[in-house]
Formats: sequence, structure tokens, C-alpha cells
Amino acid sequence: MDIKAQARAMVRYLPILDWGKRYNKDALTSDLVAAIIVTIMLIPQSLAYALLAGLPAQMGLYASILPLVAYAVFGTSRALAVGPVAVVSLMTAAAIGNLGLTSPAEIAAAAITLAFLSGVVLLAMGLFRLGFLANFLSHPVIAGFITASGILIATSQLKHILGVSASGHNLVDMLHSLASHLLDINLPTLAIGVAATAFLFWVRKGLKPRLLALGIAPRLSDILTKAGPVAAVAVTTFITWGLGLADWGVKIVGDIPRGLPPLTLPSFDLGVWSGLIGSAVLISIIGFVESVSVAQTLAAKKRQRIDPDQELIGLGASNIAAAISGGYPVTGGFARSVVNFDAGAETPAAGAFTAIGIALAALALTPLIYFLPVATLAATIIVAVLSLVDFSILKRSWSYSRADFSAVAVTILLTLGFGVEIGVSAGVLLSIFLYLYRSSRPHIAEVGLVPGTEHFRNINRHKVLTDPKLLTIRIDENLYFANARYLEDYLQNRVAVDCGLTDVVLMCSAVNQIDLSALESLEAINHRLQSMGIRLHLSEVKGPVMDRLQRSHFLDELTGQVFLSQYAAMKALAPVGAAA
Amino acid sequence: MDIKAQARAMVRYLPILDWGKRYNKDALTSDLVAAIIVTIMLIPQSLAYALLAGLPAQMGLYASILPLVAYAVFGTSRALAVGPVAVVSLMTAAAIGNLGLTSPAEIAAAAITLAFLSGVVLLAMGLFRLGFLANFLSHPVIAGFITASGILIATSQLKHILGVSASGHNLVDMLHSLASHLLDINLPTLAIGVAATAFLFWVRKGLKPRLLALGIAPRLSDILTKAGPVAAVAVTTFITWGLGLADWGVKIVGDIPRGLPPLTLPSFDLGVWSGLIGSAVLISIIGFVESVSVAQTLAAKKRQRIDPDQELIGLGASNIAAAISGGYPVTGGFARSVVNFDAGAETPAAGAFTAIGIALAALALTPLIYFLPVATLAATIIVAVLSLVDFSILKRSWSYSRADFSAVAVTILLTLGFGVEIGVSAGVLLSIFLYLYRSSRPHIAEVGLVPGTEHFRNINRHKVLTDPKLLTIRIDENLYFANARYLEDYLQNRVAVDCGLTDVVLMCSAVNQIDLSALESLEAINHRLQSMGIRLHLSEVKGPVMDRLQRSHFLDELTGQVFLSQYAAMKALAPVGAAA
Repeated sequence: MDIKAQARAMVRYLPILDWGKRYNKDALTSDLVAAIIVTIMLIPQSLAYALLAGLPAQMGLYASILPLVAYAVFGTSRALAVGPVAVVSLMTAAAIGNLGLTSPAEIAAAAITLAFLSGVVLLAMGLFRLGFLANFLSHPVIAGFITASGILIATSQLKHILGVSASGHNLVDMLHSLASHLLDINLPTLAIGVAATAFLFWVRKGLKPRLLALGIAPRLSDILTKAGPVAAVAVTTFITWGLGLADWGVKIVGDIPRGLPPLTLPSFDLGVWSGLIGSAVLISIIGFVESVSVAQTLAAKKRQRIDPDQELIGLGASNIAAAISGGYPVTGGFARSVVNFDAGAETPAAGAFTAIGIALAALALTPLIYFLPVATLAATIIVAVLSLVDFSILKRSWSYSRADFSAVAVTILLTLGFGVEIGVSAGVLLSIFLYLYRSSRPHIAEVGLVPGTEHFRNINRHKVLTDPKLLTIRIDENLYFANARYLEDYLQNRVAVDCGLTDVVLMCSAVNQIDLSALESLEAINHRLQSMGIRLHLSEVKGPVMDRLQRSHFLDELTGQVFLSQYAAMKALAPVGAAA
Repeated sequence: MDIKAQARAMVRYLPILDWGKRYNKDALTSDLVAAIIVTIMLIPQSLAYALLAGLPAQMGLYASILPLVAYAVFGTSRALAVGPVAVVSLMTAAAIGNLGLTSPAEIAAAAITLAFLSGVVLLAMGLFRLGFLANFLSHPVIAGFITASGILIATSQLKHILGVSASGHNLVDMLHSLASHLLDINLPTLAIGVAATAFLFWVRKGLKPRLLALGIAPRLSDILTKAGPVAAVAVTTFITWGLGLADWGVKIVGDIPRGLPPLTLPSFDLGVWSGLIGSAVLISIIGFVESVSVAQTLAAKKRQRIDPDQELIGLGASNIAAAISGGYPVTGGFARSVVNFDAGAETPAAGAFTAIGIALAALALTPLIYFLPVATLAATIIVAVLSLVDFSILKRSWSYSRADFSAVAVTILLTLGFGVEIGVSAGVLLSIFLYLYRSSRPHIAEVGLVPGTEHFRNINRHKVLTDPKLLTIRIDENLYFANARYLEDYLQNRVAVDCGLTDVVLMCSAVNQIDLSALESLEAINHRLQSMGIRLHLSEVKGPVMDRLQRSHFLDELTGQVFLSQYAAMKALAPVGAAA
């Protein structure tokens, strides 16, 4: 490798070298403003999502420092804001719950190990260019699991609003556990929780129009709206401290170690690894899908490009960074990335500046939130995730396609009933199965010539010209193992009832692959038709398919010809019909 | 349901009502002759395959009585001969081996339960019309696993030829175990085994031409050739008895209970069921595929038809019959069905007559084979299965398609290394994965008009007319979740470098499905092109795809039109180019 190629490879794996050398004062200003806004938004979110993951609050802060710096170095998106997100936090809680640990130290170690394994999985996927795997999560499955996990997450936080202890990793267990604790409701907690939730909903829906109506500049209105959770945190913390509500049973965040993230190492215990690796793979893929969808949406707005395989490396580096600095699995979040983008972030440096902001918070602010009620954090989570719940996908998919609808429905139901891992896996498998099932029973049309053109169409849908001696079949699917026998049966049945036939043409305009199983079926069809005195022809065979057929003996054995176009076939085989 | 509909349903599920009423003396004679030949062939085979399955010899006989009667009632093939077969016997041995049982009674009970579960699985698949599932076993996977299991089975019998005790369910274990016992070889056993194997190979390859050369009628030569294994059994049994070789360490079949099959019941222990159900599903599918391929090949020769879903019911009934009469899993065998067909079997009654023949053998012959050396049975298995070993599929698939080749290679290697279940499962999953992978990165061609025609072809392969303002893209794949984003990226990159474009046409002749994910991608493409001042059109959209698009809002938002043919699109959008 010469020096230039080395340099290109460096730039590919280290995008910072590309944007870094063009960095200037304008970009710095934009990035700093964006960083301040995102920092304000991220502090309560980080604490809240750590709580959702069942981890100490400071782990949320730690996961919002070094991972952001790692992404700034390795990531390609200019606006993606990395850190703890709701779905991944929920999945982390479920994954660690499966291990049955009880000591907080072991739980924290498992979260760090999970981040490490996710990082390794993401890095490996990036280096082996496996980013395409994410395409197998179809839109219906993604929409379904986001809605279902929004419901799951909101429900999981109800116990903090009610001030009771409840448990469960699926909707039924959670509701059942909540119902059995209804008599233990802590009224001061409920008051804080309901007030904070109502306030945050109002901030989200009603505050911005009101501010705009008061003549406040849109940009400032926006920042004030985003600062809603910080206000809720400040006010409820103050009230809880002032009224001494902790003595009345209001659960508070309490003592958070003050300082920069500690240096940590993942566990290298194979038992822990084997218990977490399946979850790590799913967390990686789902985190990647969430992250890359946001990144691509934002990049498209500015005509920039995302390299999905390099995104895997960026996210992998972020998770490794989380693992060595006391964090837990992270990915690019939807809401905060949009905020970052809207606030004007120009380069990944905005992420690094946000990291500095959070680090300062970890150094200075933690004593101030000693009296922060857990109910307030639960309220911020509930308000954030309920905005993701959207059942309209059920209606849209129902009217468009039953297959897509069933993928959505199964994903939602199984996610609610058994958690994200099972819900998403079942949705993906069902989507693939339904796709294969449909392609195993392909649409096959008998076609004829549209008068006045050289174009052939289904005889049942269009007025077309045909010839009684010539049967033209258009197979609307790739020919491969799953439908090879279906075509054999179809032709056998169709030809058996038709005595006058001399020629059958398979129009291959929709056949993009012919695999070895289908080739053997074509050979069988050719022989069977031959024994009935009927010739078999092909038409409109595509280049790549033809290249392959030429490597087999099929074309030597074929009783008929291969025509460039179906019109050429009809001209040669049924000149009267074609001339009509 | 009126009486006629009831009668039709009866005939569908009881094909015997159809052929039974047309049964006559000619058919009876043909069936009887075929039954005698198949009985002669089946007696040593049944004993040998029971041995291969690790079961007492009489279970092979029992599996060749009642199951044949059940198939005669419920099956649709005129020539299929049901009973114990090599691959299913091998899989039975592996499935029972997994349970770790030691007492012979428990092992026999497990085999009966396995037959019962296979029967239930087959019946359920038949009633729910799931016969199409067998299509997912591609030809390469079938060819690979048949070759590999032939090698496995032959290797598993070597210990009986050598007269040593060895174990193992995969090739490496077997060879290792054999090697460690090489010093224990029993020479009289080896002599019998090698002689029987050589004799049977000679019968298979050299006897028939010799008989024909001697002027013996072809039909009789054929019967004499098929009786080879019976001759080997008779001669080696006589020698072993005469020379008292059992005292010299030659393992003999020994005492076989004399009489008709006992009435048995499967175990209803849920633990046993959960240990066997996975194997039962695989045995069912593989047995069904083997059986239905033979049945279809033979039916095609006489222009008869097989109903795959009714075949499932026939095989299901056979396995239930095996379970209640002391047998083990059965299916339609290749070799014996061909013999049955060649011997002139006209109806499934031939199977019932074969059952009577085997029942007579179970009643009368078992004392005669007390001294039958196990090595002789091993020799019949080795000679039978080695004829299935055929590595030519490796060469054929290599030259045709690397994807098919890797499916063959993986199936062979994993079957040899880990047994049929893992080998076949891995082969099927790999085939599906490679198919999906290919369709996730579809071939996309830029096309132009072939001069003098209305036909459009790839600009890189053909001399075609194009227009600089018009880009026509032919997508050679269904548009679905796995490749929706790929198309978005392709178009984004292609359009970005081309400034003069005003119109883009997606030619959909090869698009047979557009799912909801792809619809959303098309909407995104439409919006993005719109923002660049480019209109998006579709052409040659098929009927079923158009039906679906009309149920969405896409066509309302589309900036361009939907053209019946690509030629119509070119005439409308680039009249100069189309006229040239």
C-alpha cells in the first residue's frame, strides 16, 4: 500500500481527519451553541435512562461522556447525538434481568460487559461490512417494536409515579404487579409524579405556541421548551428538599459519586459472556438501525452522506468507550439528534463539546440533585416515550398488505407480551417467512400482445392477441428452489388440458435469478414437453441470468430458442397473430 | 354438505375409494407379481435397517407390515413402496442416541414414540396443507445430504464388517472409534463381511449383463439380480451354522420373536416428547421429500398425478400404523419403489400384498435366520447406500453458481461432521440466507431502446438509444424491506452526478411485489427527486402490484405518470429518442 492509499484508508476509518482539517471558527460557534442545548437536555435524560436500565444514575452520566468523544472521532454523521436511549436502556434492563443478579456491583459489571460486547459486535459488523443485515428489519417491524416498547417503557415507570415497588419485564406482569401494590401508593410521590408529567406534556404541546405568541424569538422559544425537563428537575428537587418529602416516603436519587467517570474493565467471565451475547447482538442491531435511520434522515436534509459500515465502527467505538468508563450500551438517539441538528451542529465536534458539558455536570452538579425525586425522572421518560407510540401503522399496513400488517401486529403483541428481543426476532422471522412464502407460490400470467404495440400483457386483464398453437407464460418471480416445483406443476396442469399446442414460451422479464434447483425443473419441463411434441422457448432472459444458463447444458438441450423479446418470439412462432 | 360433496371429500382423503372400485383381475395379477419381488427384497432390508437404527431386527419387519396397509388406504402413489429406509433409520438412531437411554425396552419405546410423533407431524402438515414447506429443501441440499448420509451410513456399518464394537454419530468419531479398535478385528466376521460385500457389488454391477448374455429373459434376470441379498443371507447363514462360526465370535442375529406384530402404544411422557419432537419434524420433512420425489418421478412416467398434501396424510397414517404395531419411522423408499414400479405394480394394493408377504416371513422365517451374521446385513446396507453417494453435484453446482455450491458443500461437511439434522438445517438456512442476500443487493440496469423495436435493454450489454434528459432504471428484483434502502442509495448516487435530467422512469417489469417498506422508500425517492426538479415515473407495473399501489396514497403524490409500457414512456417523455 503506498502512502496515498494509506491516507485514504485512514480517512475512511477516521472521518475526523476529513472534517477536522476544514474546521473553522464559524463551525466552532455553531457546534458550541448546539452542545449547550443538548447538554441541558441530556443531563436529566441520562439520569432517567440509567434508572430505566435498572442502574445507578451516575452510569447514565458516564455513558454520555467518553462515548460521545469516540463517536466524534469515528462517526460519519454530522448531527447524530450518541448516548443512553430509551429502547436500548429497556433492553439492557431485560438482558441483565435474565442473569438473575442481585448485588448492585455485579449488575453494574454486567452492564459494562454488555456495552463491551455490543461494541465488539458493532465493530465486527463494521469491519466485515455487515451493515446490510439491518435492512432485514422492515419498516413495519421497526414501527411495531417502537410503539410497543414505548408502551412497555411508560408502564415500567408507573411504579415510580405511584411510589410503589413493582416488577416484571412484560406488560401483563407489570400491570399485574402494579395492581397488587395499588394500596401502597405514596401520595406525595404521586403528587410530584403527576404534576411533573402534566407539566412536561404541557411544555411539549402547549408552551412553544404560547411563547411565540408572547413575541419571544423562535430559537429562544425552542431552547426554553427543551429546557422543560431541567425546570421540572429543579423545581421538584427544591420542593422535595424544602418540604422534607424524603421523610414522607418520596424516593430520591440520593448520593451520586462526584467526579469524572472511573476507568472500568468488562468482565471476561465466559459464563457472563454467553448469558449476554445474544442480547448484545440484538441491542447492537436495533441500536444501529435506530441510529442510522436518524443519521440518514438528517444527512439527507443537508445532502450529506452516511456510510453505514463506518457508522457501525463509530457506534462500536462508542460502546467500547462506554465499557471502559463506567457506562452502559449507547446508541444515536432520535430526539437529541434532532435537537442537535436544529440547534445548528455542524460537525461531530458538537458531540465532543456536549461530552465536556456532561463531564462538568458530573463534577459539579451531582450534590445539587441529591433530593431529585425519582418520580420526576420517571415523568421525563414517560413523556418522551409516549411520543413514540403511534398505532397508525396498523391501519396503514392493514389497507396496504396483510403480510405487512401481520408483521406489525405480531411484533407489537410479542414485544408487549415477551419483551423487545422476542418481539423483534419474531417480527423479522415472520417478515422473511411471508416473503418467501409468497415467492414460493408466484403469480403466473398467461400473456398476449397488446394490439398496436410490441407489448405483452395478462390475457385476463387486457384485450390482447393470442394464437391457439402458442402458449406464453410470464412467471412473475425469480425461479429458485422454493417455487421450482410449483412451476412444474403449473405447466403440467396447463398443458395437459390444451391439445392444439405446439410451442410454449416462458417470458422471463421478471426472472432475475435461476438457481440450480430451478434449472433442474426447467430441464424436466423441457423433457416432459418434448415427450408431448411441444417445444419450449424462452424470451426476454436478462443478461446475468443468460450468462449463468450458458454455463450449463440446458441451452443445448432446449427444444426451442431463446428470443431477445417476446415480440420476436411471437413473430417467429405465430406470425399471423403478431401481424394482426 | 350434501352427499355428493361428502363423497368427493371421502375420495380425496381416501384415494382407495377411487382406484378400488376399478380394481380388476389384471391389476390383481400385476400387483401380486410386484408384491412377491418387493417382499423378497424387503426382508433382508427391513432387518438391516432396524440394525442401522440401533433396534432389534424384528422391529424392521414390523415396520414393513401395517404401515404398508395404511399407505395403501391413504396414499396417492400407485408405485410407492413404504417401509424402513436408510436415511430415516440413521436419523432414528441419532435421535434416540440423544436421549441417552440404555435399556433395550426404553430404546424400543422411544422408536415407537418417534414414529407416532412423526405420524402426527405428517398428518398435521397434510391437514394444514403445509406440503409446500418441503420445497425449501433445495436440490443442492438434498443431493448433499443424500451423499453425506450414504457415507455416514456405510461407515457406521464398517464395525459389523470388522467384527468390532465402535460408536459415534459423526464421521470423525466413527473413524476414530474404528481406528482404536483395529486390533480387535474378528477374522471370520471380516471374511464373511468382505465376501458378502464383494458378492453384492458384483450382483449389482456384473450379474445382470451376464444373465442376459446367457439368454435368460430380461424380466427373470432382473428378479434374480434383486434376489442377490436373499442369496447372500441364505448362504452366509448356512455357512455360519455349518461351521459354528458363532463360537468363533461371529455376531449373529439370534433369537427373533416369531409372530405377528404386537399391539404397542407410544409413550405419553412429555419429557420424551420434548426430546424427540425436533427430530420428528426433521424426519417427517426429509422422509416426505424423499418419498414425494420418488412418487412424482414414477407418476410422471405414467402421466399420473400425486397430491403432495394427501401424500403427507398417507405417510402420516403409515407412521401412526408403525407406532401401534411395534415399528419405527417409515417413509417411501427410493430403491424399492423403483423395483415395485418396474415389477409392474398397478395400484397401492401391491403394498398391501407385500405386507402379507412380510407378515408370513415374520410368522415362519424368523427361526431360519437365527444364524444370520450381522456382517451380511451390514454388507447389504453398505452396497445399497454407496450407490447413493454421488459427488458430481459438487462439480455441477460449482460451475453453475457459487451459492448453490456453498449450500452443497456446507450440507455435506456438516452432515458428515454433525449428522443429518444439523447438516440439513444448516443447508436450508444457508440457501435461504444466500437467496435473501442476493435479493438484498439486486441487479439494477440502466436501459435504452433496442433500435427498430419497442424493446428496452441494458445500455452496457446492447446498442441502444437513450436520451440525456431521461434516465430509465430497470430494477431486477422485487422491492421489499431487504433492498428498499439499496434502491434509495443507488438512485441518490446516480442522480447526483447527472445534471441534465428531467425525468426518471423506474421500469417495473421485474418487480413482482412492493411491500410497505419499499413503498415508503419510493415515497422518499419521489420527494427527493421532486426537490431536485426531477419527475419520477413508473412503467410496466404488473396488475397485482398496481392493485396494491392503488390502495395507498403513492400514486396521488407521484410527480410523474404510470406508463403501460416503457416504449409508451419514452414516446411521451423523449419523443426524439423514440423516433430515432
